[in-house]
Amino acid sequence: MDNNSPIGIFDSGVGGLTVLKEIFRVLPNEATIYLGDTARVPYGIRSPDTVTRYSFENTEFLVKKSIKLLVIACNTASSISLEAIKNHFSIPVIGVIEPGAKAALGSTKTNRIGIIGTEGTIKSNSYINSINAIRNKGTVAVKIKDHGTKYLDRYFKIEADGMVIFTKACPLFVSLAEEGWTTNDVARLTVKHYLSGLKKENIDTLVLGCTHYPLLKESIAEVMGDDVSLIDSATETVKEIKKMLSVLKLESKSDKIQRQFYVTDSPERFLLIGERFLGQKIEHIEKIAVGI
Amino acid sequence: MDNNSPIGIFDSGVGGLTVLKEIFRVLPNEATIYLGDTARVPYGIRSPDTVTRYSFENTEFLVKKSIKLLVIACNTASSISLEAIKNHFSIPVIGVIEPGAKAALGSTKTNRIGIIGTEGTIKSNSYINSINAIRNKGTVAVKIKDHGTKYLDRYFKIEADGMVIFTKACPLFVSLAEEGWTTNDVARLTVKHYLSGLKKENIDTLVLGCTHYPLLKESIAEVMGDDVSLIDSATETVKEIKKMLSVLKLESKSDKIQRQFYVTDSPERFLLIGERFLGQKIEHIEKIAVGI
Repeated sequence: MDNNSPIGIFDSGVGGLTVLKEIFRVLPNEATIYLGDTARVPYGIRSPDTVTRYSFENTEFLVKKSIKLLVIACNTASSISLEAIKNHFSIPVIGVIEPGAKAALGSTKTNRIGIIGTEGTIKSNSYINSINAIRNKGTVAVKIKDHGTKYLDRYFKIEADGMVIFTKACPLFVSLAEEGWTTNDVARLTVKHYLSGLKKENIDTLVLGCTHYPLLKESIAEVMGDDVSLIDSATETVKEIKKMLSVLKLESKSDKIQRQFYVTDSPERFLLIGERFLGQKIEHIEKIAVGI
Repeated sequence: MDNNSPIGIFDSGVGGLTVLKEIFRVLPNEATIYLGDTARVPYGIRSPDTVTRYSFENTEFLVKKSIKLLVIACNTASSISLEAIKNHFSIPVIGVIEPGAKAALGSTKTNRIGIIGTEGTIKSNSYINSINAIRNKGTVAVKIKDHGTKYLDRYFKIEADGMVIFTKACPLFVSLAEEGWTTNDVARLTVKHYLSGLKKENIDTLVLGCTHYPLLKESIAEVMGDDVSLIDSATETVKEIKKMLSVLKLESKSDKIQRQFYVTDSPERFLLIGERFLGQKIEHIEKIAVGI
């Protein structure tokens, strides 16, 4: 492992490509290996144990490829498995939660923040814990009350130290993004169903806590209005990656870099949807077996 | 294995519970073992190789439980893996495709049929092949043209021997059914997007070729109108199971039966969504490891 070793990135599928796209833009001289666990996507509906098992298997694969830094480009896996992976592997690891939490705290003026994500991310309370840790250096525990009233609604409200946080799981957003329905009438109506409750709570900052969600940004912005800042964890995470590479003096010295892709199911569907997520052609892709 | 051995049923998750519910109704004296592969759901977006690998692992688990008959209660797995499973295992196997295809042929008067299902089911052409095999005893091959115009649209039209078949993948239906949005405005609008093309083609029969879709029956019926018969593969498959048990003289002789459930991820989410699908409480559920 040296400066010219690749950055390893894994996600359950195509979602993490929004983070990879930002790496390409901000760190164009870095080699990358992206692993999409397409044989077991989505992670957002799975139990913590299963998400952690899958995350470990993905990390083991990437570590064997001599990566210099691991990026967990999936909010669900970052929420549930980041600490366990940090403790078990010796390479530096970055998740997508803390960068998003930091950015939300930097953005809010009214201390009223919304967080949206998959069921797994929302149930883990990872954003709340991260915001709390940043503000109180981890010393104050918050009490969380479930104010959900409807089936799978998972609408929480948390109050602590003058900060009010609302969280909401939006399971259909992933399917919409993958179907390419990001601005049509179904997308807009679905966004309204999920987010009009948050809108009424007068939040001024909304964290898009799933790497699929930036694709729905236009429809989300329309419902939330101009007064609400949308935090895209891809952008924030890549700022953090850049900083960490600089601190560790691990920046690439080469301009001859490779961008490799691995998937656990056949690449066909990944290419079809992924090239739209990434905004460019995907080459050097290979199907591999993980966790068998 | 004897008359009182259980019927084994597997599906990728909760969808197959629509078939199980019908087994409970029509064959109340049969013991059942249901396996939902919830750690790897959904199958509809996966490649044929992966679906077959998962289906084999599920079958091996059930065969070890001494089942007398296997039901593949998943259209995707039936479409892709039924023949391979029939060839490899010695127990009798029933899938959900042929019963649906037979019922569609029995229902249509105009010979214009629509088939909807997951990407995996539609791409496999399993219903077309099955309809063709029933009509022509498998001797005539049909030519299939892809008339899809939009991204992931997969709208096919097939003409053979005076029969016209239209197929369409409706990926969002699964997420809608699992979210419990089956008759709201988002559900109705999504149904319109997917099905108004089929409606214009004047089909008189529509096969709901995914075990999730019967939950959306009301919205689908509204868009298709009274002139279109909806074929629910659950109902048709259970008629076939009943017939096969009778032919093989394998009907249960006991009225003390057990209904067991196994899942590959933690049961929490399966119970939450599954009890709605099944319309009753789920007991005797256990998490097991398959294919690890």
